[in-house]
Amino acid sequence: MLINCVAYEDGIKLADIQVDEIHDYATLPGCFVWVALHDPSPEELNRLQPEFGLHPLAVEDAHQGHTRPKVEEYGESLFVVLHLLEAEAEQPSMLQVGEVDIFVGPNYIVSVRNRSEHGFADVRERCEREPELLRNGPGFVLYALMDAVVDRYFPIIETLEAELESIEQQIFTQKAARASIERLYGLKQRLTVLKHAVAPLLEGAGKLHGGRVPQICAGTQEYFRDVVDHLNRINNTIDAIRDSISVAIQVNLSMVTIDDGEVVKRLASWASIFAVCTAFAGIWGMNFEAMPELKWRYGYPAALLLISSICGYLYYRFRRAGWL
Amino acid sequence: MLINCVAYEDGIKLADIQVDEIHDYATLPGCFVWVALHDPSPEELNRLQPEFGLHPLAVEDAHQGHTRPKVEEYGESLFVVLHLLEAEAEQPSMLQVGEVDIFVGPNYIVSVRNRSEHGFADVRERCEREPELLRNGPGFVLYALMDAVVDRYFPIIETLEAELESIEQQIFTQKAARASIERLYGLKQRLTVLKHAVAPLLEGAGKLHGGRVPQICAGTQEYFRDVVDHLNRINNTIDAIRDSISVAIQVNLSMVTIDDGEVVKRLASWASIFAVCTAFAGIWGMNFEAMPELKWRYGYPAALLLISSICGYLYYRFRRAGWL
Amino acid sequence: MLINCVAYEDGIKLADIQVDEIHDYATLPGCFVWVALHDPSPEELNRLQPEFGLHPLAVEDAHQGHTRPKVEEYGESLFVVLHLLEAEAEQPSMLQVGEVDIFVGPNYIVSVRNRSEHGFADVRERCEREPELLRNGPGFVLYALMDAVVDRYFPIIETLEAELESIEQQIFTQKAARASIERLYGLKQRLTVLKHAVAPLLEGAGKLHGGRVPQICAGTQEYFRDVVDHLNRINNTIDAIRDSISVAIQVNLSMVTIDDGEVVKRLASWASIFAVCTAFAGIWGMNFEAMPELKWRYGYPAALLLISSICGYLYYRFRRAGWL
Amino acid sequence: MLINCVAYEDGIKLADIQVDEIHDYATLPGCFVWVALHDPSPEELNRLQPEFGLHPLAVEDAHQGHTRPKVEEYGESLFVVLHLLEAEAEQPSMLQVGEVDIFVGPNYIVSVRNRSEHGFADVRERCEREPELLRNGPGFVLYALMDAVVDRYFPIIETLEAELESIEQQIFTQKAARASIERLYGLKQRLTVLKHAVAPLLEGAGKLHGGRVPQICAGTQEYFRDVVDHLNRINNTIDAIRDSISVAIQVNLSMVTIDDGEVVKRLASWASIFAVCTAFAGIWGMNFEAMPELKWRYGYPAALLLISSICGYLYYRFRRAGWL
Amino acid sequence: MLINCVAYEDGIKLADIQVDEIHDYATLPGCFVWVALHDPSPEELNRLQPEFGLHPLAVEDAHQGHTRPKVEEYGESLFVVLHLLEAEAEQPSMLQVGEVDIFVGPNYIVSVRNRSEHGFADVRERCEREPELLRNGPGFVLYALMDAVVDRYFPIIETLEAELESIEQQIFTQKAARASIERLYGLKQRLTVLKHAVAPLLEGAGKLHGGRVPQICAGTQEYFRDVVDHLNRINNTIDAIRDSISVAIQVNLSMVTIDDGEVVKRLASWASIFAVCTAFAGIWGMNFEAMPELKWRYGYPAALLLISSICGYLYYRFRRAGWL
Repeated sequence: MLINCVAYEDGIKLADIQVDEIHDYATLPGCFVWVALHDPSPEELNRLQPEFGLHPLAVEDAHQGHTRPKVEEYGESLFVVLHLLEAEAEQPSMLQVGEVDIFVGPNYIVSVRNRSEHGFADVRERCEREPELLRNGPGFVLYALMDAVVDRYFPIIETLEAELESIEQQIFTQKAARASIERLYGLKQRLTVLKHAVAPLLEGAGKLHGGRVPQICAGTQEYFRDVVDHLNRINNTIDAIRDSISVAIQVNLSMVTIDDGEVVKRLASWASIFAVCTAFAGIWGMNFEAMPELKWRYGYPAALLLISSICGYLYYRFRRAGWL
Repeated sequence: MLINCVAYEDGIKLADIQVDEIHDYATLPGCFVWVALHDPSPEELNRLQPEFGLHPLAVEDAHQGHTRPKVEEYGESLFVVLHLLEAEAEQPSMLQVGEVDIFVGPNYIVSVRNRSEHGFADVRERCEREPELLRNGPGFVLYALMDAVVDRYFPIIETLEAELESIEQQIFTQKAARASIERLYGLKQRLTVLKHAVAPLLEGAGKLHGGRVPQICAGTQEYFRDVVDHLNRINNTIDAIRDSISVAIQVNLSMVTIDDGEVVKRLASWASIFAVCTAFAGIWGMNFEAMPELKWRYGYPAALLLISSICGYLYYRFRRAGWL
Repeated sequence: MLINCVAYEDGIKLADIQVDEIHDYATLPGCFVWVALHDPSPEELNRLQPEFGLHPLAVEDAHQGHTRPKVEEYGESLFVVLHLLEAEAEQPSMLQVGEVDIFVGPNYIVSVRNRSEHGFADVRERCEREPELLRNGPGFVLYALMDAVVDRYFPIIETLEAELESIEQQIFTQKAARASIERLYGLKQRLTVLKHAVAPLLEGAGKLHGGRVPQICAGTQEYFRDVVDHLNRINNTIDAIRDSISVAIQVNLSMVTIDDGEVVKRLASWASIFAVCTAFAGIWGMNFEAMPELKWRYGYPAALLLISSICGYLYYRFRRAGWL
Repeated sequence: MLINCVAYEDGIKLADIQVDEIHDYATLPGCFVWVALHDPSPEELNRLQPEFGLHPLAVEDAHQGHTRPKVEEYGESLFVVLHLLEAEAEQPSMLQVGEVDIFVGPNYIVSVRNRSEHGFADVRERCEREPELLRNGPGFVLYALMDAVVDRYFPIIETLEAELESIEQQIFTQKAARASIERLYGLKQRLTVLKHAVAPLLEGAGKLHGGRVPQICAGTQEYFRDVVDHLNRINNTIDAIRDSISVAIQVNLSMVTIDDGEVVKRLASWASIFAVCTAFAGIWGMNFEAMPELKWRYGYPAALLLISSICGYLYYRFRRAGWL
Repeated sequence: MLINCVAYEDGIKLADIQVDEIHDYATLPGCFVWVALHDPSPEELNRLQPEFGLHPLAVEDAHQGHTRPKVEEYGESLFVVLHLLEAEAEQPSMLQVGEVDIFVGPNYIVSVRNRSEHGFADVRERCEREPELLRNGPGFVLYALMDAVVDRYFPIIETLEAELESIEQQIFTQKAARASIERLYGLKQRLTVLKHAVAPLLEGAGKLHGGRVPQICAGTQEYFRDVVDHLNRINNTIDAIRDSISVAIQVNLSMVTIDDGEVVKRLASWASIFAVCTAFAGIWGMNFEAMPELKWRYGYPAALLLISSICGYLYYRFRRAGWL
């Protein structure tokens, strides 16, 4: 579905144009065309290909979808793939992975959004409000789109951090080992999705600043460095969370082991005390005829006293050993 | 076994030719010869060596087989080894490793397929359908072959991902710890096979695009970059699965430990309750003559009441402690 | 809040100046202006921007705060972000993360301190005491600030090392497995905060010495190398502590497992001994009429002897096996 | 011990010569001398040093032995150390580490074999059979020696792979946890020995092909690349085995934990059933006078029925819970 | 404390000189001065600074001590810090960390030894015995000192290797899990101390050979490469030991788990057998009036027979299952 097709001159919007007018505007000096598509049909995309001379391999990637994030140069033009992450509507703990494919050339930028509801109207507005920056051409629009996509990763990583913190508290206070591990495992899976969005992009975006950069990005290098800096921040946080998850699973298991160990020691201690009790009672429950103590007047209280002394002594020993 | 031997001119098939006609065609300007072999005898391979001036070390590798994937330059020509992976017919959970060795020069390409049933007839057809691309010469054929091989890795990695997902569900829901670990271990082994096919190739194929590339690939760099991109995707997925396996084994063991701990606590709790019961019964089962309570009219019900009260109290305590 | 605004010429303080005099002094040859702000309002910062021509992206970072440490070049000027770490007043085991953003140009240095009480008055004093070094200009002031910030990391890492050592002693001597693991986990969290302050800075500061360096730092390279050396030392210590924590958790769990295993063996051994005792007593407690040994004169002592022999023998065996 | 001292011209053997004739032959154009020593006395080595101008540090290394594998340039000449690995005669599971030190210059090659019985006579034969390759001079002989040494690593790594496979089968089928872990640990130790032979050599040999290479190897680069390729293959296999060992230990322990957990659950279940049985029997074994059910005609069978019903019910419950 | 102050010309010792004569000798062509200090007072060090023009940052490092090993260039001169490791006199299992700071310039070398009793008199002697090497100037002395320091690491690493081997034997043969883990942990700590001495030095010393090297080391590159080679060897051994420690802790814990599991199974099996015995005895110990078998003549032996048969059968089953 075509969302927008607008021509800009010197950073100022000229007009909303038709797809078949693209060629007229794109060839004007100082002019560029910004086309936005959403889940386009193959035909829509194919129609744009000859207008801008898009490379067949790039178009094929855009058709297929499900590629990893990347920044590729084709001659003078760039092909950029970004992942769009959104919490699923029904299951907020799952991340839905959409994709935006961006074709950028000296006089055009085409953004193709797939499998994601959250559009880029705000990016277009912001760009049009700052004509002195938009004057930098399609390279700046590319920056604005990347910046918007990367900024949307921050709330996600913050959710993951909060989730980790909530699990961490549970590890040491509540008894919910099984649930904690399930949650940690789910957290790890979401983190992997985010990592797959961030890590390859970090590598790709690094080519857009410092040293030799594509001509399109030449005037806006510092802006791309800013994007890389944000990606770096997210990436470091991902690695830190991942590390914490691994330790947390280990610690969780340790806590279970320690707790179980204590319970077992306690139960086994009590069982031992009563086993002793039973053994003595069993002795005097034997049916031998000649058991003189059975006839003693205070035999029974003496036996009870003996048994409780022994049990008391055991209790004292186990207590001191920290088992009870 | 010789499968095909065809001469092409400007991307158009000239003729199926005989091995002894190769020299005639290969020396025509704008012409190249594409030879396909399948599990060839040493003689077949040796016969081709002088025709194309294949390097002895490369031919030796092709004779021996079982080398790791690689891309090697010998002067103007290239020697490429790719692994072919197929699920074994009888045991679909095992991967069979075949190999295709490709010799590429300015005017020839020789592909030697070993230990694999799945041929490349479809690659040849696709190439012949696109003469404007095939005009790029043997370099493009090399791309087409690599692309076909790499594309065949995708269903394999998807099978592995599905397998992992199915195991993950079992970890938290079913009781099949032993089977889960066996399956995870088997998954890891297949993953290692795939990793051995992908990782060295990724390294080798990286030399075919960007910076200085072999002359043969000069015009088709962007295509090789596309192959590298696919390999990168597979490689990242492999690493993610491998990471998940390691965590899954750890989590699986944690679950077993937690479950066992709970069962042991439960059984030990019940055992303790009955041990207490037995101890008291043992006391009143002693044969002392002077045990006044034995003569009481309601001694027996009182004893039963006492015992069940104690057991009930223990039950309540254990329940509250979460052991029962 | 503006703390200071001073003009220097050839390393000597000229005068405390007003913000609107900055332009007059900054354009004098051999002169530079050093401005210090603390938790400034957005207006204060915006007012300085045109005076020094600060880059909008850098100013935006300073407004937002919470960026990772970095060293960025904007044309001739530098933008440096450092983390300030302080133990929290109420909870000394928590680290509070503040930030200082430093803008450096050929004739100015602006330091913006956020969320931290510990100021840099001592740095200014030290610089003014050494005019022959301060003559190097804003680059030297940058060094002095970085050096001061990094030096403040040392007591923190020493606290962490001491904490680790105290936990290590507990692992092998006291019985506080649960507390040890909690402390190790807390230690790991503080270490992560420190790592996030140090690692990116190490990377950034590496650009200020050796090879091509920004013009501003050209004359003071060796000083920046010294900062990098300190950062390297801290970074290595962090990695060593982190490694030790991981091993310590593992060892702690091992110790618990070994201890629990011993207790369980001991209790189970005693329980077995008394179970044997009870079983024998049970036999002679049966009510069969024809049990000749019950009538024996010395049946009872013989039975007691037999039972205690068996128990004694078991005790001896268990002892020898190391279970008791 | 001097084994061989032969002069070659244009790849053809000229003559077996004496050590004091070396100088005469080595200075002939197109001629080089190949000396082979085995566990030489310090004097033998020292006598060769001035003949070829060997560097004192290299000779010192050769005297001492026990250096790590390496490839070092000394001006125009090379000093190469390779590890020779052989299964020990008495204990085939141990690897004996020998060493061959190779000095190569433009007109000589000296190989010093230490602590290893397996000589290089076959290498010399193969070289002499291929004069067109031997014409490349000492660089080719170096290749031939390295190739021979590396080829001897393959059977070793295959033994280790077979050992791993045999252990892997045991993990899931037999009950030999302790033995499996001992074998895995031993495997890991042998693997470390192999790794120490391969990894540094891989690094060193990488300097002999691609980019700037020592003059001696200039004409035989592709051969050295072949050696590096073999080393890479071995190195990857080592890493894969090492990884598998680590997982296998983890899995082995998991299996033990799972198995033990099942046994404990089963035994504890039975113990619980009989504890219940004993408790009830204890009740009716009490000596209260007023226990009406004891006088009932069918009291005993009723009691037996009750007890076995309860036990049966427990059995059913435990069975369903998977503990029995 | 000043230990030595000697002037050398062309590798030959000229004279022991006074500190205030340094300037006279250091300015003679072909002459250099070698000063050795031991735990100097700040004044002694400060007095030397202007004589040789030592850099203030380097002198500050030497004053403070406790820096990490490093090799730093200050203009034409070098500042090198090495760690000196010695087993503590009272506690041979602890490593004491001393330090030697070396200032090297074109015509001087100053070595400052701190917190270490083991001096470098032997290095000086060896240098003076080889004037043809000492002629290379202060760079060669630097090599000789580094070589001596690094050579002293070898016995330490060998002690650690021996310690590891002794622990490894214990793991599989003796029962000393707790002690083994304590020893492994202590080993790891000493290893970390050694690692901190070696790893940064390896990095620093790498700058002294190959590619661009400081002028001072230009003629002795091959010697520094030899030092790097030794450091590499130590470093690899450290990594291997560290790896082994980690596996050994894991294996040790596995062994404990396996052993404990076996003991628990054995004890629980016996307990089960006797529980069965007790249960049956309890049945016939009930006081029901109508228990016909109690009146049977051979009731008692029959009961004993039944009980022992059942116990025997259980024993047989447990034995076969490998629990006894």
